[in-house]
Amino acid sequence: MTVELVFVGTELLLGNIVNTNARYLSEKCALLGLPVYYQTVVGDNRERMAAVIRAALARADLVILNGGLGPTEDDITKDVCAEVMGFPMKEDAAVRARLEEWYRQRNRTDIPESNWRQALVPEGAVVFPNENGTAPGLALCRDGKTAILLPGPPNELYPMMEDQVCPYLRSRGEGAIRSQMIKICGYGESKVEEMLLDLIDGQSNPTLATYAKTKEVHLRVTARAATDDEAKKLLKPVVKEIRKRFGEAVYTTDEKETLEEVVVRLLNKYDLTVTTAESCTGGLLAGRLVNVPGASEVFREGYITYSNKAKRKILGVNKATLRKHGAVSPQTAKEMAIGGVFAADADACVAVTGIAGPDGGTKEKPVGLVYLACCLKDNVTVEECRFRGNREKIREQSVVQALDLLRRCILKSCKKD
Amino acid sequence: MTVELVFVGTELLLGNIVNTNARYLSEKCALLGLPVYYQTVVGDNRERMAAVIRAALARADLVILNGGLGPTEDDITKDVCAEVMGFPMKEDAAVRARLEEWYRQRNRTDIPESNWRQALVPEGAVVFPNENGTAPGLALCRDGKTAILLPGPPNELYPMMEDQVCPYLRSRGEGAIRSQMIKICGYGESKVEEMLLDLIDGQSNPTLATYAKTKEVHLRVTARAATDDEAKKLLKPVVKEIRKRFGEAVYTTDEKETLEEVVVRLLNKYDLTVTTAESCTGGLLAGRLVNVPGASEVFREGYITYSNKAKRKILGVNKATLRKHGAVSPQTAKEMAIGGVFAADADACVAVTGIAGPDGGTKEKPVGLVYLACCLKDNVTVEECRFRGNREKIREQSVVQALDLLRRCILKSCKKD
Repeated sequence: MTVELVFVGTELLLGNIVNTNARYLSEKCALLGLPVYYQTVVGDNRERMAAVIRAALARADLVILNGGLGPTEDDITKDVCAEVMGFPMKEDAAVRARLEEWYRQRNRTDIPESNWRQALVPEGAVVFPNENGTAPGLALCRDGKTAILLPGPPNELYPMMEDQVCPYLRSRGEGAIRSQMIKICGYGESKVEEMLLDLIDGQSNPTLATYAKTKEVHLRVTARAATDDEAKKLLKPVVKEIRKRFGEAVYTTDEKETLEEVVVRLLNKYDLTVTTAESCTGGLLAGRLVNVPGASEVFREGYITYSNKAKRKILGVNKATLRKHGAVSPQTAKEMAIGGVFAADADACVAVTGIAGPDGGTKEKPVGLVYLACCLKDNVTVEECRFRGNREKIREQSVVQALDLLRRCILKSCKKD
Repeated sequence: MTVELVFVGTELLLGNIVNTNARYLSEKCALLGLPVYYQTVVGDNRERMAAVIRAALARADLVILNGGLGPTEDDITKDVCAEVMGFPMKEDAAVRARLEEWYRQRNRTDIPESNWRQALVPEGAVVFPNENGTAPGLALCRDGKTAILLPGPPNELYPMMEDQVCPYLRSRGEGAIRSQMIKICGYGESKVEEMLLDLIDGQSNPTLATYAKTKEVHLRVTARAATDDEAKKLLKPVVKEIRKRFGEAVYTTDEKETLEEVVVRLLNKYDLTVTTAESCTGGLLAGRLVNVPGASEVFREGYITYSNKAKRKILGVNKATLRKHGAVSPQTAKEMAIGGVFAADADACVAVTGIAGPDGGTKEKPVGLVYLACCLKDNVTVEECRFRGNREKIREQSVVQALDLLRRCILKSCKKD
């Protein structure tokens, strides 16, 4: 079953917004084992949209249309698709009731007449109720072809896709597909691929796909089989082998868990508090930790010590250390981490000092040179990193590497106990 | 002249990456006054790519193909497009020389034979030399249709587009186009549109386009005329009128200047230093300031005071204030800002305290309630904000609003002097 994705929205053609839904839906299709050969973006124009839908239905088995389902006059995706496929429209009582309930809960009484167009459904369509908005999703089938219409706003699209459309597509596919996410820190994408060459080359089921993130690689293993149990059996040994090869560099196998969530979870588990002492990252490391709801249990305060004076005053870094080795040195990073533990009365401190550029680099200390230190239970680990890219990229990589350093230090220190 | 954008890359169809080039090129076309009716993504497949190029050339005057120009066997965009348009390939001496120089500078001698394919150029094509990579851009013209081929990596695409392709397209267009960016903080997109309704409705030249960003609206005014001077003349009164209507809410008219750059520029101008006292934003505000190269001149240290104890210890917030009014209150925000100025011995301090959620909200103090305070020259300004969205969005909006509060306080205080 081949898939084609069609995105509807003049704002995409004008470059007002980035089409993140395209990445999301493409990845979901890959995950379901459905090959996507084309994506098309078209505006809110009846003729051009009809032509795009006709072409897509001619060359793919399944066409997913995204956007243009709302209540305004511009939203014509449903009308055009039903017309192209030859379905008459009919008010759906259940959709109408949901709409009424939606407006009632929000105390809205002045509903423009055009909003009720959202209760019109092509005859015989499968309806996917929208838990987070007014426009339902739809599936239309005719002559062996299927069109699925989904709302544009990501907060409506994502849950509808996960909870309703993926199960629907899975039930229609032949056999079962199962996949497992493995998130790895500390290896580059090409290194990961090199280490898995035999698994990638040797077999096409399960398949392995790598997704490069900043200083992380996400690995998706996907197995297909006649039954879910068989797919699970195919998956298990491969996942086990990958975990063995990467060891503690695998920070999670939970699709939804982020690196900072893992760090906060570990801190909670071992009843530790942490603080941050940041120079070149200027607060971004603490900002990532505070991303996690409930971070206040493990993180109470943090310091941005951008100037040398601040490093001395707040963290007690030695004047002589700064003079002799400079602010960007393993010695300063170490003293920052130790000083942070004392200043915040925390169990651990992660310190970052580096040259993010574009200026300030020298031959000995080039732009991209960053020292990280983690002080935990009287042990200090210092790491030297040489990052590439612009100021933003260098700071971003520093943050990820610092989170991972903290994670590894906790594992090393606490597993011993 | 209508445009169609074609993006080549299997990684886009698999959802490995977000197609940010689509937004970039679409906006550039809008800026040049060129309407884009379709965007298509296709993989590295000869047949499907040829069909897409044929369809695009049939319905648009100009087709921009992006990606698939590199040295590997997968990179077939140039071959396929030349074949579809009927151009024979020929080695271009200048391109070959550039390639040799590129590899020489990098001390690379083991160049795979396939890399020299990049020196092949369709006969009669315009060549756009690549300053940041090996594959040049190309323009092919035949029968009134033009295909422009551009490299995929953004660091190669963007400068090539700005420096070479935009001037090329401008020179081919009829008349002149001139546009002016106006960046506004403190108004929502619909409010901005409402305030400009007469300008938007009344005339189609200059045109106005709004781009909603987090707590900002970017407004682009574009004028078309026979000559550049006439376009300038059309633009001027409209830009002046918009500046008048929004006053100091216009923080810059420089396309490339960010809000944090404006803030750092103003701090430098008035010889002020600033510090930050952050609770719910947890370092993101300082992180934004440190985005600006050279921020060290005006920002030396910052504090993340996530716990009440940290607010008391580091910023000297009164125990009674916290008990009586709570951590999320105008009183606490005010004391945080004042305390920050003293702790850092800075001229100014911006403080943020709020409820980012998802937990911690009450009926009186719901999720999204954020207090900002700015202390500058013995004056403290406190603002209450009620933001919507998830934890991430609330924190992001808080940061922008805090930067803008600081900007407005500097303007108010320093212009008086």
